[in-house]
Amino acid sequence: MDDFDDHFHDECGVFAVYGAPEANKLTYLGLHALQHRGQESAGIVTSNGKQLFAQRRLGRVQECFSEETMQKLPGSCAIGHVRYSTAGGTHIKNAQPFAVDYAHGSLAIAHNGNLTNGLALRKELEGLGSIFASTSDTEVIVHLIARAQGRTLYDRVVEALRRVEGAYSLVILSESSLVVARDPYGFRPLCLGILQDAPLFASEPPAFELLGGEFIRDVEPGEVIVVDESGMRSTYPFKSKPRKMCVFEYVYFARPDAVLEGVSVYESRKRMGAALARQSPVDVDLVVPVPDSGVPAAMGYAREAGLPFEFGLIRSHYIGRTFIEPSQSIRHFGVKLKLQPQRQLLAGKRVAVIDDSIVRGTTSRKLVRMIRDAGAKEVHLRISSPPTRWPCFYGIDTPRRSELIAASYSPEEIARYVTADSLAYLEPEGLHASVGSGGFCDACFTGDYPIAPSNPEDSPQRRLPLVAE
Amino acid sequence: MDDFDDHFHDECGVFAVYGAPEANKLTYLGLHALQHRGQESAGIVTSNGKQLFAQRRLGRVQECFSEETMQKLPGSCAIGHVRYSTAGGTHIKNAQPFAVDYAHGSLAIAHNGNLTNGLALRKELEGLGSIFASTSDTEVIVHLIARAQGRTLYDRVVEALRRVEGAYSLVILSESSLVVARDPYGFRPLCLGILQDAPLFASEPPAFELLGGEFIRDVEPGEVIVVDESGMRSTYPFKSKPRKMCVFEYVYFARPDAVLEGVSVYESRKRMGAALARQSPVDVDLVVPVPDSGVPAAMGYAREAGLPFEFGLIRSHYIGRTFIEPSQSIRHFGVKLKLQPQRQLLAGKRVAVIDDSIVRGTTSRKLVRMIRDAGAKEVHLRISSPPTRWPCFYGIDTPRRSELIAASYSPEEIARYVTADSLAYLEPEGLHASVGSGGFCDACFTGDYPIAPSNPEDSPQRRLPLVAE
Amino acid sequence: MDDFDDHFHDECGVFAVYGAPEANKLTYLGLHALQHRGQESAGIVTSNGKQLFAQRRLGRVQECFSEETMQKLPGSCAIGHVRYSTAGGTHIKNAQPFAVDYAHGSLAIAHNGNLTNGLALRKELEGLGSIFASTSDTEVIVHLIARAQGRTLYDRVVEALRRVEGAYSLVILSESSLVVARDPYGFRPLCLGILQDAPLFASEPPAFELLGGEFIRDVEPGEVIVVDESGMRSTYPFKSKPRKMCVFEYVYFARPDAVLEGVSVYESRKRMGAALARQSPVDVDLVVPVPDSGVPAAMGYAREAGLPFEFGLIRSHYIGRTFIEPSQSIRHFGVKLKLQPQRQLLAGKRVAVIDDSIVRGTTSRKLVRMIRDAGAKEVHLRISSPPTRWPCFYGIDTPRRSELIAASYSPEEIARYVTADSLAYLEPEGLHASVGSGGFCDACFTGDYPIAPSNPEDSPQRRLPLVAE
Amino acid sequence: MDDFDDHFHDECGVFAVYGAPEANKLTYLGLHALQHRGQESAGIVTSNGKQLFAQRRLGRVQECFSEETMQKLPGSCAIGHVRYSTAGGTHIKNAQPFAVDYAHGSLAIAHNGNLTNGLALRKELEGLGSIFASTSDTEVIVHLIARAQGRTLYDRVVEALRRVEGAYSLVILSESSLVVARDPYGFRPLCLGILQDAPLFASEPPAFELLGGEFIRDVEPGEVIVVDESGMRSTYPFKSKPRKMCVFEYVYFARPDAVLEGVSVYESRKRMGAALARQSPVDVDLVVPVPDSGVPAAMGYAREAGLPFEFGLIRSHYIGRTFIEPSQSIRHFGVKLKLQPQRQLLAGKRVAVIDDSIVRGTTSRKLVRMIRDAGAKEVHLRISSPPTRWPCFYGIDTPRRSELIAASYSPEEIARYVTADSLAYLEPEGLHASVGSGGFCDACFTGDYPIAPSNPEDSPQRRLPLVAE
Repeated sequence: MDDFDDHFHDECGVFAVYGAPEANKLTYLGLHALQHRGQESAGIVTSNGKQLFAQRRLGRVQECFSEETMQKLPGSCAIGHVRYSTAGGTHIKNAQPFAVDYAHGSLAIAHNGNLTNGLALRKELEGLGSIFASTSDTEVIVHLIARAQGRTLYDRVVEALRRVEGAYSLVILSESSLVVARDPYGFRPLCLGILQDAPLFASEPPAFELLGGEFIRDVEPGEVIVVDESGMRSTYPFKSKPRKMCVFEYVYFARPDAVLEGVSVYESRKRMGAALARQSPVDVDLVVPVPDSGVPAAMGYAREAGLPFEFGLIRSHYIGRTFIEPSQSIRHFGVKLKLQPQRQLLAGKRVAVIDDSIVRGTTSRKLVRMIRDAGAKEVHLRISSPPTRWPCFYGIDTPRRSELIAASYSPEEIARYVTADSLAYLEPEGLHASVGSGGFCDACFTGDYPIAPSNPEDSPQRRLPLVAE
Repeated sequence: MDDFDDHFHDECGVFAVYGAPEANKLTYLGLHALQHRGQESAGIVTSNGKQLFAQRRLGRVQECFSEETMQKLPGSCAIGHVRYSTAGGTHIKNAQPFAVDYAHGSLAIAHNGNLTNGLALRKELEGLGSIFASTSDTEVIVHLIARAQGRTLYDRVVEALRRVEGAYSLVILSESSLVVARDPYGFRPLCLGILQDAPLFASEPPAFELLGGEFIRDVEPGEVIVVDESGMRSTYPFKSKPRKMCVFEYVYFARPDAVLEGVSVYESRKRMGAALARQSPVDVDLVVPVPDSGVPAAMGYAREAGLPFEFGLIRSHYIGRTFIEPSQSIRHFGVKLKLQPQRQLLAGKRVAVIDDSIVRGTTSRKLVRMIRDAGAKEVHLRISSPPTRWPCFYGIDTPRRSELIAASYSPEEIARYVTADSLAYLEPEGLHASVGSGGFCDACFTGDYPIAPSNPEDSPQRRLPLVAE
Repeated sequence: MDDFDDHFHDECGVFAVYGAPEANKLTYLGLHALQHRGQESAGIVTSNGKQLFAQRRLGRVQECFSEETMQKLPGSCAIGHVRYSTAGGTHIKNAQPFAVDYAHGSLAIAHNGNLTNGLALRKELEGLGSIFASTSDTEVIVHLIARAQGRTLYDRVVEALRRVEGAYSLVILSESSLVVARDPYGFRPLCLGILQDAPLFASEPPAFELLGGEFIRDVEPGEVIVVDESGMRSTYPFKSKPRKMCVFEYVYFARPDAVLEGVSVYESRKRMGAALARQSPVDVDLVVPVPDSGVPAAMGYAREAGLPFEFGLIRSHYIGRTFIEPSQSIRHFGVKLKLQPQRQLLAGKRVAVIDDSIVRGTTSRKLVRMIRDAGAKEVHLRISSPPTRWPCFYGIDTPRRSELIAASYSPEEIARYVTADSLAYLEPEGLHASVGSGGFCDACFTGDYPIAPSNPEDSPQRRLPLVAE
Repeated sequence: MDDFDDHFHDECGVFAVYGAPEANKLTYLGLHALQHRGQESAGIVTSNGKQLFAQRRLGRVQECFSEETMQKLPGSCAIGHVRYSTAGGTHIKNAQPFAVDYAHGSLAIAHNGNLTNGLALRKELEGLGSIFASTSDTEVIVHLIARAQGRTLYDRVVEALRRVEGAYSLVILSESSLVVARDPYGFRPLCLGILQDAPLFASEPPAFELLGGEFIRDVEPGEVIVVDESGMRSTYPFKSKPRKMCVFEYVYFARPDAVLEGVSVYESRKRMGAALARQSPVDVDLVVPVPDSGVPAAMGYAREAGLPFEFGLIRSHYIGRTFIEPSQSIRHFGVKLKLQPQRQLLAGKRVAVIDDSIVRGTTSRKLVRMIRDAGAKEVHLRISSPPTRWPCFYGIDTPRRSELIAASYSPEEIARYVTADSLAYLEPEGLHASVGSGGFCDACFTGDYPIAPSNPEDSPQRRLPLVAE
């Protein structure tokens, strides 16, 4: 139903546990709590100290695993991965964790992020005789580890990561140890938790909550942690870089109940709404969120503006992947499957509609027209983040620049296109004030890329479809 | 996931359309909009004027039908049905519409409701040589129609319905006509809409909205409508009875965007919350809804009380039917899969938690303990309807009286059981004031049954499991 | 793959067991041994003495049942059914055993055969108010039982069967007893076996062999057997008729290892081949069977003629239901998927090809051309039964008369159509001599119908598709 | 159903076509004709001249591919593979063709055979930094090709194959060319055919027959053929070795309608039976084959001995993969599901039972006892090949030596174990005389290995389960 969901998409979530009974089921639950970060495929690799065991499937976590598959995942250590479907299709060969045999035994790796020099490294490795079974950056990292000279897994991982540039939050499992790494900029989130004595790692803290664990702290940018029989050791082997976690995690990606780098996602969204109300007030009768992601910002907007907050759009809980559509066209069909307007609430009213972002604008246009058809007298669109004008190269699925409506048009032009009576975006200052002191990557809003992409128009996700499956 | 969802459940939703192109797909969309009324099975029967075509499946509407099954449903008239799984299991033989051949051709029927004299009629019909392939009341109605002497389908339906007592909202399709009936008390809702010139019928108006149609009016209690080539005729062939639509449709069953008998479900829920705030105020820091059904009442409560409304519980969008559970027990596991607490919001706070109803109390107990574990200092439970003390015999799946916690325990005792600091239910007067002038069945709260059940302890859903499949 | 299999088809197989541990699994195995009699659907109904339990599915026995479904079939008594897909499609509502509730409790029935007055009885029953959920004759029998006045199940069954005409081998299960009946002509086979002390019933004796039981005797034409707690009683309540078992069971339907009415199917087929060799000799180099059904007849032919018997056609063991076909036409594609010619064996040879029957002739034509393409110098077709010229009304799926090639064309004309150098059918005398003393129905060869059909051109399988599913 | 099928198993079949419309569907049909060589997985890779397209699935060819998957396989060149499930399970990651990207583009490879130095090469490659995603030898070959220095694909393949030892019949597809290779001993069969102008390659000639092509000749041992836009070129780049095609292809693996190295499989099996009759005659009443593989040998035995040939065992056509078994033991259950005895044929008779081979002997024991239980007076077992005493290292799935009954016991001891009145195997001379002039590998009978295995007891299929999936 991507046509009806005009958002950037996070590409992955990762999870790891070391030294806990039923590591397989804990990872299953952790992945379930991270399901919003990727619904295409799910995978778990466990170690029983002697051998790795892998299960990967296309689909959601609950569909991918059963009691029967759990029995094929013995051992007390595990890593897991959920993946979002990027353009070009859904293939089991791209499912993670990626698991291989190499000179030192077996290795499994789960990766959230994207390498900016991945293509160059791949060409170099192929020149040395490496073969590639997938199109993912993760395989590049595995080849680098396999060719590294270091004595321990930790040594080899650090040696490999010295070669790569870009975004990575990684969990790597061998028969006997777990290595966890976050890139020096800290583009993607990664957190450390604990369950009884067992360390846990996850993209977001609610994964710990679900399985009864506790959040300890964020894994730091540039930190590499190794866990084995002798315990857990934290190291910082790379040159330090400015902290650049993705600000869009607060805007849309992360769960509202996540707290990342000390800041509550839910509270930051309410502050974005309040800042937007101060910055772009409007004389309306109602404030209506686009559920679910626009709800906290709308609450903040309404409270700050002293306006009634109402669920003027009702979200369906039964949206699946495909839909039969009548050949006779139904107005607003796509958006209506997901959101239905409350006619008696909207009729004759001036309405401020609060959404978190606009990518292509097509859904906003359908939405505004549907609200107006339901009787609204005026529809004012308020977006709780700045205009998204630049593609991401650090692990987010974004369209090319030419498809980003705000890259080519002004808010006034966009307002006309989506047929809104007015449109305002949150200014970057308001966004920064809402998420705290700074140190975030906001390249999608500003084009201010922490690592320069080789070709800004060439989205890295699309580069290598050599063998299609 | 019924363990984690302590609610009464509506048993069915019905839909019908007469004389529209793609009647099959319109019915498919109508049933999708009624999906919340039943997820066990879905069925569509169409007529092309000469013959009926049926497709029934177990599962949700989207899973049940494909472009391929649509092609097996030709014709411009159709009825559809979604069904909730009552105790005793999920069987294709109980899926509706029920379709048969009889002396006058073919007949399909979709039924929302429950007959109070169904068992007696069944015994009588069996005594006359009738055979029964299902355990549903609907088959009783079909047998009565088949044995009726009337000349037209309308005559036979009316003759059959004169024999039955209880709750029914029915849509009945033959090769050439559609008959729609609502019982004289009007226990279950039923609405009339229009799409271009074609009449539509559905349990709730949002089904019309989704497919681009318009709501016209409620079908009246005791009204029988016949639609055929010569047009639509409304009749009132039965002795009039006091209007008794199910008040629980407002409390929980119906969609928030539905307007039933002129009253907005969403607004009525906000009024229930406001009435509850006036009736049972509490000195707290936050008002937190149990999403999604508790949200409007919590908004009403918070506004009336002048308290902050916050999403202290985050609902998962990825809850499926079965879940792998670790053998090592996880605290609050069941409820946590569906709802996760926002620790940083709840910690140290006095919280009013707003839910719509309590059936057995087990989920509430888990919920309150989970909120307290997340750091809440005080947890006050406020229920936006009166205590549910009596089983329903008019088409709602309720447990036996002995399983209804409020049938045996006072609110104070229940508060102790669920470990809440305080517990208050909305008084019946507050409920009635919220939904309007009266004329509702509230037997589940009061035991004041409009039609006396033969044996109040004998829930009708359980009576006939003779051949199990 | 019906296009590639030009045969009459048996419509069903039935099985029953009374008073044995694991009656469900014994029935499962019995049905597996009868799988050749029907691959469309399979069903088992068991009784635990108090209640019936039913499981019916579309597909083959192995696909239909699992350890899980077995657990839903408790009790020591069971009946089962496999069904062939007749024209008009495959629908779960036609799967048997048919199970209902009626005035005296529950009832399940499995039927092999076809009633010649089924349609008339159905009209009569509908006139009395009966409703029909399927198009099968079996439902007619159930209605008659339900309306019968008799005190015991046996009495009611006999009363019902006095009304019906035609072919039936029936097994009927109630909570406490099993009634087994074979029509007075004995059109369809039915056998009695034993496993330890438990009586078994099946369409063919190999069903007993598979589960370790023993064959006792055929159930006699007109015999009705009742088995209950007090033991087994045999009765002959109907007026005696001439014995008329279907001779085509020997020609094609039954398993080669079956012995029916004292005659081995395998030996009778060899005798048909030998008789054909005496009657229609031919000067050839090789005798080649169309496997598998033509193998025994070809062995008999070759031995009698003193000619080499060779597998010139190799049958694939991997034929499924659907096949992807290239758009560029492949010669003999259909038949070749099932049978491939041995080029080096056939090249330059004069070949006698032995098949059991020809229905429409299209497959024979493809087959003869394929053998000639593989290099055969002459191809002489020999059919080990007489020309099939008349449809069956007693439970076999046959096309209308106009589609039977031998109804309109002489053997010489058919030889030209199928491009054979010569064609000969076995004469009826040769057939009768091969199967023994007489007392068989051979209406499909002779048009000599034991019970006159109301309309010989109106195949009973096609009469009632009122509600399509 | 492996318990009931005591045979060695071929591991794979391969197919290729270059430059034909609908290469995908031709490959599909070719694989279907090779289905007996492997039922675990099937895969097709096509090239449209610019890119490769791959589809691999677990299951049989018909289950693996649909019209929809065919549309994902464009282009006029294709290779395909079917695979048998070796010990250790069925995993999609081992399905072939194996497809990768490397420095020169994309590459897909399908392999029938087994490398005797595969493990050593793998260790060497891992030492150079290669990673392995599967446990198959095929991946070793791919790594060698990727590291080769040659300019063309042909050069790189030859360079890689110079490093390997053992058995391989290979088809290798790049974007623009097809390379086909058979090892210098010619262990596994490989044939060249033609369809109009397009060259075809397949493990056995019946694959050409099915799709309307013609057999041209065997690919020679040591031959490497390259097909590209400029046509087809045959080369012999390796040092010549003695011809050593697997003799077991004639005994059991190949289709009866295959002609390999000029010898008809069907005729050779009849000759084996005849030779056995001359060598080990027995005074019996009947010769009975174990169908289907024992049929031609039994025909040869019976003709030579002048004894009646009868199908005393009837094979079921409905054997699937799993079976529900009653807990009360049924005699001969396993073998009876597949083969049922004809009691009336066997009773009181002295029977010679002809089978093609014995591996563990458990099935033979059940079979002999079942035949005796069916009334046979004497059961004499005759095996149409010598005792299988040695494991295979050239691509056949054989158990360890200790599990081969003939490795430890004499025919007399085996006769006692299987309870036969006598047992005789065909002598090696009789086998060689039946298949022709010599030049076959018969190491499984003689231990005379053309290439010495590093550890004869260490079956190569079991060596590398490092990451289990």
